Amino acid sequence: MPARHLLDVDTLSTEEVDRIMSMAEVFVDVSTRVVLHGGHVALLFAEPSTRTRLSFEMSARRLGGETYVLEPSSSSMAKGETLIDTVRNLDALGFRFLVVRHHRAGAAAVAARYFGGSVVNAGDGWHAHPTQALLDLFTLRRHFGSSDLRGRKIAIVGDVMHSRVAKSNVWTLTAAGTEVFLCGPREWLRGLDNLPATLTDDLNSALRDADAVMGLRVQKERMARGVSLDAYIERYQVTAARLDRLAPGSPYLHPGPINEGVETTHEVARGPRSLVLEQARNGVPVRMAVLAGLAGAAVGAWRHRDA
Amino acid sequence: MPARHLLDVDTLSTEEVDRIMSMAEVFVDVSTRVVLHGGHVALLFAEPSTRTRLSFEMSARRLGGETYVLEPSSSSMAKGETLIDTVRNLDALGFRFLVVRHHRAGAAAVAARYFGGSVVNAGDGWHAHPTQALLDLFTLRRHFGSSDLRGRKIAIVGDVMHSRVAKSNVWTLTAAGTEVFLCGPREWLRGLDNLPATLTDDLNSALRDADAVMGLRVQKERMARGVSLDAYIERYQVTAARLDRLAPGSPYLHPGPINEGVETTHEVARGPRSLVLEQARNGVPVRMAVLAGLAGAAVGAWRHRDA
Amino acid sequence: MPARHLLDVDTLSTEEVDRIMSMAEVFVDVSTRVVLHGGHVALLFAEPSTRTRLSFEMSARRLGGETYVLEPSSSSMAKGETLIDTVRNLDALGFRFLVVRHHRAGAAAVAARYFGGSVVNAGDGWHAHPTQALLDLFTLRRHFGSSDLRGRKIAIVGDVMHSRVAKSNVWTLTAAGTEVFLCGPREWLRGLDNLPATLTDDLNSALRDADAVMGLRVQKERMARGVSLDAYIERYQVTAARLDRLAPGSPYLHPGPINEGVETTHEVARGPRSLVLEQARNGVPVRMAVLAGLAGAAVGAWRHRDA
Repeated sequence: MPARHLLDVDTLSTEEVDRIMSMAEVFVDVSTRVVLHGGHVALLFAEPSTRTRLSFEMSARRLGGETYVLEPSSSSMAKGETLIDTVRNLDALGFRFLVVRHHRAGAAAVAARYFGGSVVNAGDGWHAHPTQALLDLFTLRRHFGSSDLRGRKIAIVGDVMHSRVAKSNVWTLTAAGTEVFLCGPREWLRGLDNLPATLTDDLNSALRDADAVMGLRVQKERMARGVSLDAYIERYQVTAARLDRLAPGSPYLHPGPINEGVETTHEVARGPRSLVLEQARNGVPVRMAVLAGLAGAAVGAWRHRDA
Repeated sequence: MPARHLLDVDTLSTEEVDRIMSMAEVFVDVSTRVVLHGGHVALLFAEPSTRTRLSFEMSARRLGGETYVLEPSSSSMAKGETLIDTVRNLDALGFRFLVVRHHRAGAAAVAARYFGGSVVNAGDGWHAHPTQALLDLFTLRRHFGSSDLRGRKIAIVGDVMHSRVAKSNVWTLTAAGTEVFLCGPREWLRGLDNLPATLTDDLNSALRDADAVMGLRVQKERMARGVSLDAYIERYQVTAARLDRLAPGSPYLHPGPINEGVETTHEVARGPRSLVLEQARNGVPVRMAVLAGLAGAAVGAWRHRDA
Repeated sequence: MPARHLLDVDTLSTEEVDRIMSMAEVFVDVSTRVVLHGGHVALLFAEPSTRTRLSFEMSARRLGGETYVLEPSSSSMAKGETLIDTVRNLDALGFRFLVVRHHRAGAAAVAARYFGGSVVNAGDGWHAHPTQALLDLFTLRRHFGSSDLRGRKIAIVGDVMHSRVAKSNVWTLTAAGTEVFLCGPREWLRGLDNLPATLTDDLNSALRDADAVMGLRVQKERMARGVSLDAYIERYQVTAARLDRLAPGSPYLHPGPINEGVETTHEVARGPRSLVLEQARNGVPVRMAVLAGLAGAAVGAWRHRDA
C-alpha cells in the first residue's frame, strides 16, 4: 500500500528512506513543473519558521505547485476555529497537499484523518519532525558517502526530551545503520528508554570517537525546570576543544536556529566542520523528494513499512 | 451599464444572479489562465479569514491572476495610513482587482470610489458579504436543483442584526424566489424591518416545514448585551431534535467558523444533513464566476439592476 | 567592476543613475519573464510597508522571479535568530535576490556580507532608501523632462535627520544636477553638514522659487524631543498658500504615508500639483530596472562609481 502522508519517519522502511535519498540527489540539480502541475499546496504554520517554511514553499513551487501560506493569527483560527475544522475546510477548498507545523504533538496525525490529500508533518510539538531527520541524514550521506554511514557513531546533544528533531533522527539514523547516542542533563533524558539509542548524561562518553555531533536548540524558558543555563553551558556546550574528542574531522550539525554561546560557540557554529548551512541547503531537494514521492504514491513510488 | 464592482447583492438583478450561478457551474470543473492573464489582484484583509481569503486567492490564480495579500499589521496601515490612501496607492501600483474585507460597514464602497479597477466586497462590518450569499445560493441550487428553489422556506437563525451574511442572503434568496425567515432573540432583530423577510423570535415558527436552515456565528462577546449564552442555547440552538421540525431531509448550512455547542451541535454540524463543507467547496467556483464576470464587465457580461 | 548590490545611491555614478532611469522608462510599458526566469527573490521586511513591499514584489514577478515574503514575526527571528544567521540561511536555500527593509542603519550592508546573490536595500533605519530616491528622481524627470533637471532647486522639508528618504535623495538629485535645500527645525538638521545640500530652518528661503518641494513623514513620537507638533505645523506645514512661493506650477512630492494635517494639508496632498501617486506608480518600473540591472550585473549592465 502506498503511503499517502508523511507523519513520522518511524513508519518508513530502510528502502523507503533510501528511495527518498536517491530522489533528493536528483533534485539537487533538477527542477520540474510537471510533478505537481498546479496542484494546490497549503502551508499551515502555527509556529514561527524560516528554513522549514521557505524550503517547503520553494520545493512545492519547483515541482509546479501553487503555494498558499496560512498563519493562525490571520485565519479563522484567530476566531477560535479548531485545527480539525480548518483542515476539513482546506480539504473542501481543493488542496492536494497540507504541510503542517503545530505546537501540539499529534497535530499532523489529526490533520491526516480529515484531509483527503497528503499531509506532511513539518514539526508537531515534541513529537516528530520527519523532513528535518531526512535532510539531516541526506547531509550526513553527502558528507560521508552514502554507503559509508553503517556503523558510525552519531552523538545528539541537548534538550533531547523536548526535541522532535532528536526523536525523528533516531529512527532515520538507525535505519541507515548508525549508532545513536542521546546526551544531555538527566532531567532531559526522561521517557526515552524505548528509543533504539544509548542515553547518557556524560558528554565525554557521547563524544568519544563519534563521527558526527548534532546540537539541539536549548530553549531558555525551559532552563528554570531543574537545569541552570550556566551549568548546562559548562557541562554540555560543544566547544572547539570538546570537538577534538570526536573522530578526526567529524562534523557539527544543528537544525537551527542556534543559540550561539549556549549549545555551541560561534567558532564551532561557523567553523569549517559545521554542516549547518549544508543542512539548510539540503532542505529543498529532500522536501522536493518527499512531495514528489507522495504525489506519485498512487503509482507506488514509495511504500509504508507496514504495507 | 456593466457593473464594475461587486459591493453588495442588493443591486444585482435576478438575471445577473442567474448568470453568476451558470458561470459558477462551469468553473466547478474548468480552470483557465486567460481570463485575468497576469492581472494583479490585491487581497486586503483587515479581519481574519480562512475560507474567504483562500478561495478568493485560489479563484484569482485559477483564472490566471497574480495575487498579493496585504494585511494591515505589516502594511503602512500600521503606521496610520487610511483605507482611502491605501486604496489610492494600490490603484497607482497597477492593481486591477481589489478584494477587501474590513470591519467597517461601507469600507468596500469607499474603496470603490478611489480604485480604477474592480472592487469585490469580501465582507464589510455588519453590512454585506455578497460572495458568501452567492455561494450559499449556489449550494442550495445544487442541493435542490436550480429550478426548484422557488417557493421554498429558508430559516436563518442567530445574531441576525450583526450578521452581514444574513443580510446579503436575504437579497439573493429572495431573488431566487424563496421565502426567508430571520429568527433570533428580539434584541438581535432590531432595525431589520425593511428587509423582504419575516422576522420572528420564535424558533418553532421559523423552523416549521422549512426547506433549509442556516445558522449564523454567535460571537460570545456580544452575549453580554442583553442575551445570555445559556438562554440562547436553550431557545435557539439548532439541535438534531429541532431539525426534525423542518421538511424531511432539509439541510443545515452555516458560513463558518461554527461554535459547536452554541449555534448548533457537533452532531448537526458534521452530520449527513450538513452542507457546511459544500459551502466552503463552492466558494472557489462562485468567486471565479464573480471575478470573471467583472473582468468581462466591459463587454457586458452582467449588469446592474439599476442600469 | 559590476555592482552586485544596491545598498545606497551614494556609490552610483551619474551614468549609472542615467542607465537605471532609461531602463525604467522601458519598464513603464514592458513586462518580461526572462530576466529573472524563476530566480528566487526573498523579501525580508522587518518594518511595515505597503508601497515598497508590493512594488518590489510586483517588479520581481513581472521580471519572472518567484517571490517569498519573510516577516520576522512568523520567522525564526521570532525565536531570536539574528539577521546574519537568517541571511546565511536564505543564501543556503538558494535565493538569488534579497530585498531587505530593517529598522537598523547598516542592516542591508551587513546582509550583503553574508549573501551570495544581490542585496537590495529597501530602507535601513535612518540611513538610506536608494530605490525611493531613484523613483523620486524618475518622477521628477518625467515631470520636467529628463534633460531639464539641471540647475533646478528642490526643497526637502521635515524631519530630515531621521529620514533615510531625504538622505538618499540628496545624492541622486545632486547627481542629476539639481540644487537641494534641506529644511526643518534646527533640532532635525543635526549631523547633516557633510551632505552636498543647503541646510536651513527657514521654510521661506527653502521654498522661494523652488522647482519642487518634497515633504517627509513626521513621526509623532519624535515630537516630544524638542519640537512641538503645533509649532511644527505652524512653521513648516506645506500649505497651498506656501506652495505659491515656489516657481509657478511646481509639484509636491512625498514618499508616503502622509500625515495629512501635519507635513501638508489634504488640499495639497490630493491637489493637482501633487505627484504622490505618480511616485507610487513609478515604484514598479524603477524597481524592475534595479533588479534587471543587478541580474545583468555580470555582463556589466551598470557599474560602481568607485570601479
